[in-house]
Amino acid sequence: MSDAVEKAERFRALHRGPPPLVLPNAWDVPSARLFEDAGFPAVATTSAALMASLGYPDGERMPRRELLSAIRRIATRLAIPLSVDLVAGYGRGPRAVAKTVEQAVRAGAVGVNVEDVEPARRTLAPVRAQVAKVKAIRAAAEAIGVPLVLNARTDAFRFGEGDDAARLRETIDRLAAYRDAGADCVYPMGLADGESIGAVVRALDCPVNVMVRAGLPSVPELERLGVKRVSFGPYGAYAALGLLKLASAEVRERGTYTRLLEGAITHDELNALAVPRRRSSREGS
Amino acid sequence: MSDAVEKAERFRALHRGPPPLVLPNAWDVPSARLFEDAGFPAVATTSAALMASLGYPDGERMPRRELLSAIRRIATRLAIPLSVDLVAGYGRGPRAVAKTVEQAVRAGAVGVNVEDVEPARRTLAPVRAQVAKVKAIRAAAEAIGVPLVLNARTDAFRFGEGDDAARLRETIDRLAAYRDAGADCVYPMGLADGESIGAVVRALDCPVNVMVRAGLPSVPELERLGVKRVSFGPYGAYAALGLLKLASAEVRERGTYTRLLEGAITHDELNALAVPRRRSSREGS
Repeated sequence: MSDAVEKAERFRALHRGPPPLVLPNAWDVPSARLFEDAGFPAVATTSAALMASLGYPDGERMPRRELLSAIRRIATRLAIPLSVDLVAGYGRGPRAVAKTVEQAVRAGAVGVNVEDVEPARRTLAPVRAQVAKVKAIRAAAEAIGVPLVLNARTDAFRFGEGDDAARLRETIDRLAAYRDAGADCVYPMGLADGESIGAVVRALDCPVNVMVRAGLPSVPELERLGVKRVSFGPYGAYAALGLLKLASAEVRERGTYTRLLEGAITHDELNALAVPRRRSSREGS
Repeated sequence: MSDAVEKAERFRALHRGPPPLVLPNAWDVPSARLFEDAGFPAVATTSAALMASLGYPDGERMPRRELLSAIRRIATRLAIPLSVDLVAGYGRGPRAVAKTVEQAVRAGAVGVNVEDVEPARRTLAPVRAQVAKVKAIRAAAEAIGVPLVLNARTDAFRFGEGDDAARLRETIDRLAAYRDAGADCVYPMGLADGESIGAVVRALDCPVNVMVRAGLPSVPELERLGVKRVSFGPYGAYAALGLLKLASAEVRERGTYTRLLEGAITHDELNALAVPRRRSSREGS
């Protein structure tokens, strides 16, 4: 696990900005390798797009075995750290979730995201249950000797009760509890306005992750707000599929291929994105 | 296999235009389902992008087992016919290639592409060897009772000898041999100019497939040339990855997300692309 320890430490250090860590989310080998070649220092997965690419809706309906294969497939083609989205941890209790995390680390992950949503019901898990999960993950990482970066996500702003202010308070309370239980970074899902993001950052004395969405302040603005990590979420896949939709409409309506051809990469570039980056090109960048 | 027979017949009929069959090439479940939702009457796979998405370069280095799983994954989420790119057939001799085709049909394919390139050496296979493969595939399809659409590709224009005119003659000679051996459609790889395409169509009395590339005439122009099938090849993936490259540069250089956000599909749309199309939405289109 010495490679895992080194990568986990490297990934951990990236959370000590400014500047914030800009973390693109991939769903298959070429998307991950493209982000690596683009110069990002680490890559994460997006469960929504990774699961869709293999024919499963978001949640935990994809078999754990397939999820772990997908993680291994991506991790073995990357030289940079990989963090993986494990949804709610693929397990009913803390012990099962810790086991999932251990398997993900053995598959090549050095960071994990775990959220506090009950996958089947789309409701918030009790805080106490989620705190127990976070503690169990921390203990599992210590047991296998990898300084795993645990990013604890809350969906309280989406699924909590009350008005915006009440849900923002619950977001902060939950993230503080997850931080105290051993999370390295916390992730308030659904926030896009600078004021709320700033309130979360000020209330918590640990790295905060925000996700790209319409209205999100730019990276320099997020840096001024004290944000330590900005992730793409599924937007890379949303944008790529959006382009395919436009290209399809163009071909069907006009019989032309402009959107398929302009900006397209080449066959050689695609082949290079299927396999680990060559040392020579890594040294050259 | 009654569903396979019906789909194969439906796919076969699409080659009897005008208009030409416009056939988009997918590499995973969402790209295939997106093309289905866009209204295309059938979908094909692109081996280059399908293999890259799972961490393998183009050719036959991806294990056959994984290729068949990927075919099954896509076929089980589509209501429309699926044609699959089997590279050179994944087998040394005609019998092995026929076995691959049989497995692909059992995995859900009702059309196949087989090319006359030796995967390891990137050289042209002898015509006689390729003719034997085509005959073996035709016989295998008859044995399992599925009117499989066999699209025989030649790379003679890329890898043949002599000047453009000599390579075009070899392209036509090879395609005529494959047609006579039982191919339903023939595919001159590498042609983009209307004059050469027209020459191939006039010389052969069977459906001709051309692939999107820079300089290819529009679909209406190809229809006037007598082309029966226009495929995207890997250009959908090339374009999608090209967009990710531009979006990555924008985030890294300017800290903004315009290219990730504009034209992006939604989470609900992505989830709908992971699973078979609902009957209601099919009826509604």
